[in-house]
Amino acid sequence: MTLNELIMKNAAAVDAALPTYFETPEAALEVLYDAMRYSALSGGKRIRPFLVTEFCRLFGGKEEAAMPFACAIECVHASSLIHDDLPCMDNDELRRGKPTNHMVYGEDIALLAGDALMTRGYEIAANNTAVDAKTALIATQKLLFASGAVGMMGGQQIDLKSENVQIDFDTLLKMHAKKTGALIRVSAELGCLAAGITDENDPRMQAAVEYACGIGLAFQIVDDILDATGDVATLGKMTHADDALGKTTFLTFMTIEEAQKYAKEVTEKAIAGLKDYENSEMLVEFANYLLHRTK
Amino acid sequence: MTLNELIMKNAAAVDAALPTYFETPEAALEVLYDAMRYSALSGGKRIRPFLVTEFCRLFGGKEEAAMPFACAIECVHASSLIHDDLPCMDNDELRRGKPTNHMVYGEDIALLAGDALMTRGYEIAANNTAVDAKTALIATQKLLFASGAVGMMGGQQIDLKSENVQIDFDTLLKMHAKKTGALIRVSAELGCLAAGITDENDPRMQAAVEYACGIGLAFQIVDDILDATGDVATLGKMTHADDALGKTTFLTFMTIEEAQKYAKEVTEKAIAGLKDYENSEMLVEFANYLLHRTK
Repeated sequence: MTLNELIMKNAAAVDAALPTYFETPEAALEVLYDAMRYSALSGGKRIRPFLVTEFCRLFGGKEEAAMPFACAIECVHASSLIHDDLPCMDNDELRRGKPTNHMVYGEDIALLAGDALMTRGYEIAANNTAVDAKTALIATQKLLFASGAVGMMGGQQIDLKSENVQIDFDTLLKMHAKKTGALIRVSAELGCLAAGITDENDPRMQAAVEYACGIGLAFQIVDDILDATGDVATLGKMTHADDALGKTTFLTFMTIEEAQKYAKEVTEKAIAGLKDYENSEMLVEFANYLLHRTK
Repeated sequence: MTLNELIMKNAAAVDAALPTYFETPEAALEVLYDAMRYSALSGGKRIRPFLVTEFCRLFGGKEEAAMPFACAIECVHASSLIHDDLPCMDNDELRRGKPTNHMVYGEDIALLAGDALMTRGYEIAANNTAVDAKTALIATQKLLFASGAVGMMGGQQIDLKSENVQIDFDTLLKMHAKKTGALIRVSAELGCLAAGITDENDPRMQAAVEYACGIGLAFQIVDDILDATGDVATLGKMTHADDALGKTTFLTFMTIEEAQKYAKEVTEKAIAGLKDYENSEMLVEFANYLLHRTK
């Protein structure tokens, strides 16, 4: 199987599993569930679920243990996009080439749908019965930590407070490590947990974390490059948004060529730790795929 | 100890415990933590924490097992108020006599603070080490269920879609059972869990749920009465908001006198199930206190 086939196979499995968590339980809640489904089931690359299932597989776990964690993280990710797109935040009208949630359902329902999708994501992790109760609890704790004020949401705050302000390189790194990095990291961690690795000091968990942090950083460097060089038709979203908002990016500190080199170095470091493990080729290839993506 | 002294003692314990969960971990996150603290530590009646600790006590549990659950629910409650007050929702400028979160921190930070406070609340429940892992997991599952799309947030959606629309009495009941009832109910449930009662069919759990559902309903009936009859100075918030928004309330279906009688009957039914248990006097008195409150 090629990497592309594996990515599509994994995405299809996630796309098949996700709707089972969003069946409208009663007619009075139809609007909210419609709005939740609109964002949760809107496709996308399913990068985070891929990491969950592939790390689980790499370390000998079963897909049924990984899938709820994969869906959980995707829900939290999708919920953050709904809130990010709101007028009081990034005020985006397009997401993955489609109208953003609030453009379709209104700001009030979009706000609620984000809240409910986030909560449902946490719940899917906590309700994972393919792992034991202790593992489900640890996974839920890790997901909450990664999503919350010291993780993704903290990164969003740093991002907001960095508009039209020159921030230094370390703050930029910290912002990305939280804003996008935390969910990517926890994807790898939950993959390990699904494979029964609960010890933070287990070298497999550490290799997974190092890989995830590295590709998370590289992902963001590439994102900045694409925002500066891509076009709407290819990306399916607005470009030059960073410029318009006066945001510090990696291109504030380096040229596009330097940023490409930096992303390559970070990726190489990320995959170095996986060399010890058999069958890690797809994860290695995946890191390079993210590095060379054009959208 | 009088009920009022007990309420104040419990509220003081919650007010002492809550700040320990909101120490700013790094300077870059100061704004977000300020905003979270602003709403989480703003006092209020601490009704939900009271239920957690009192049900735990009633059934022989220890306060240290109940306190994290009490704080967790209060965080989720406070987060819902931040989002409810936003311009795209109720557009309120005052809450408990103070400017609402977004009036102080702006809509963007308020949105994030709501997300982060909610997530922190779930995390505090999941991280409760005074109970075993299985109990912490069940409590977290129950809190997520009560807060999410079939609970509080679902109730908010029904509420939003009921503005300027005549809804029937059953829908009004369902809306309140979710919007405010779900968190009150889970407060009683988590109190039972803190006391080691994990079986849903345990008669103590069932009595607690019946009590909580009853006082939750009575609370909302009284809220509607106060909104129609109270004044800003006493309530510390805008009055006649329901009228202004064209909302269906209990007073759509009955007079103020009938609503008072209805709240009394519901309260009596709620406390009937506690009669079997020793030392339930304070909970009985608390139900009557909520019934007769003037703010």
